[in-house]
Amino acid sequence: MQSKLVGVLGGVGPMATVYFEQMVLELTEARCDQEHLNMLVSNHATIPDRTAFILGESRLSPLFDMAQDAQMLARAGCDFLVLPCNTAHFFHEHIQNAVSIPLLNIIEETVKACAAQGAKRVGILATAGTVKADTYGIMCRRFGLACVYPDPAAQRQVTAVIYDRIKAGEPVRAKEMTALYNCMREEGSDAVVLGCTELSVAHRDLELHAAYPDVVDSLETLARRTIEYAGKRLRKPQARLQTNAIRS
Amino acid sequence: MQSKLVGVLGGVGPMATVYFEQMVLELTEARCDQEHLNMLVSNHATIPDRTAFILGESRLSPLFDMAQDAQMLARAGCDFLVLPCNTAHFFHEHIQNAVSIPLLNIIEETVKACAAQGAKRVGILATAGTVKADTYGIMCRRFGLACVYPDPAAQRQVTAVIYDRIKAGEPVRAKEMTALYNCMREEGSDAVVLGCTELSVAHRDLELHAAYPDVVDSLETLARRTIEYAGKRLRKPQARLQTNAIRS
Repeated sequence: MQSKLVGVLGGVGPMATVYFEQMVLELTEARCDQEHLNMLVSNHATIPDRTAFILGESRLSPLFDMAQDAQMLARAGCDFLVLPCNTAHFFHEHIQNAVSIPLLNIIEETVKACAAQGAKRVGILATAGTVKADTYGIMCRRFGLACVYPDPAAQRQVTAVIYDRIKAGEPVRAKEMTALYNCMREEGSDAVVLGCTELSVAHRDLELHAAYPDVVDSLETLARRTIEYAGKRLRKPQARLQTNAIRS
Repeated sequence: MQSKLVGVLGGVGPMATVYFEQMVLELTEARCDQEHLNMLVSNHATIPDRTAFILGESRLSPLFDMAQDAQMLARAGCDFLVLPCNTAHFFHEHIQNAVSIPLLNIIEETVKACAAQGAKRVGILATAGTVKADTYGIMCRRFGLACVYPDPAAQRQVTAVIYDRIKAGEPVRAKEMTALYNCMREEGSDAVVLGCTELSVAHRDLELHAAYPDVVDSLETLARRTIEYAGKRLRKPQARLQTNAIRS
């Protein structure tokens, strides 16, 4: 059976889009190229900043570009869409309304993953835009979970990691990331959501998976759901991401 | 100035396509998302195997899919195309003839890069398809360079690394890669071309750049050329790829 063609509404940000593709490939059960699923990826970097718009710092809305990209991907034959960006899910309903094919919801999939691992109180590490829009809070309430955000000082740290490090192409230190995880644990969270795909990039580069099993990566969650939704199988149950190299 | 929209004729193979995107992002001078170039990427994994067709082992041609993807990307507004796969460049002229926008040539760019670093005799690590098609040999002669391929036993090793390891999602050992480089040096090469994008993936994952400055990576060469052709600047002169993480 031919699997479904995935349309990736990407570029928000551009590196997170690339990591998303990589995760999909690494997590798919495939022994050769042709066993992978097909993706059409709009890596549209120049889409206006999502957080700046949500916070009212910019009047330049990213919605127009994203809706147009969604329509372009649908016209090109995509069977469903994914948007590997938490902040942009503020516009999920509007983008979904612009096309007749489904747009998966990263917030919903991530909150479901938290519930599935028995979490009751979810800590959210995300952009100030996602926090202000309260997309995670709204979704957590739908699934009967409590939702906690960092205090203002910790949120400034989160923002610094996302904007001054990852989006700027600067390296992130493991201790900067783990300080954020510990901060959410101190707030009583029993699961910590990487609710910004840029944080997923750092978490993955730093190989923090094994040491922090209570961290739920929204990007990886969406990658798993995408594979299943497209009609493919996961590489193995709960396969963990791995590098393709052995340094020896 | 708005940069050009790059169309990536990808999926051949799917992981090399992702690495190509990543290289473009890492090598572009950009301090925020919006300073990156826009890419529309067809990660079309199910395109029939290129080498099997060139070797006459399969009658299923990849050309039809690739020409159709090229036309789709052109219709979607791409200003030029890149094909991050050496083997598929056997079909370069045919794909170029299917569209009215330019399709950059990874073989030409890589041979030019060898000439620019003063090489006289270029060793080619590539698929059996690329070797049989002699795409590198033809291009080397155009630029006045000698071209040498591995002996049959060494070529079987190259093929094993590409197909049984990288395309199968299995890890590659550094010593497997460096044995191939040394083999080409013993043949008198003063530059070794990674003439298969899957080898670029392994070379990069294994962080072999610094130790092997005579190795010319075709995928990285194409990424640099793509950035310049799109109207963007390279991150810094001869910037090397780096990981975005510091493990500490």
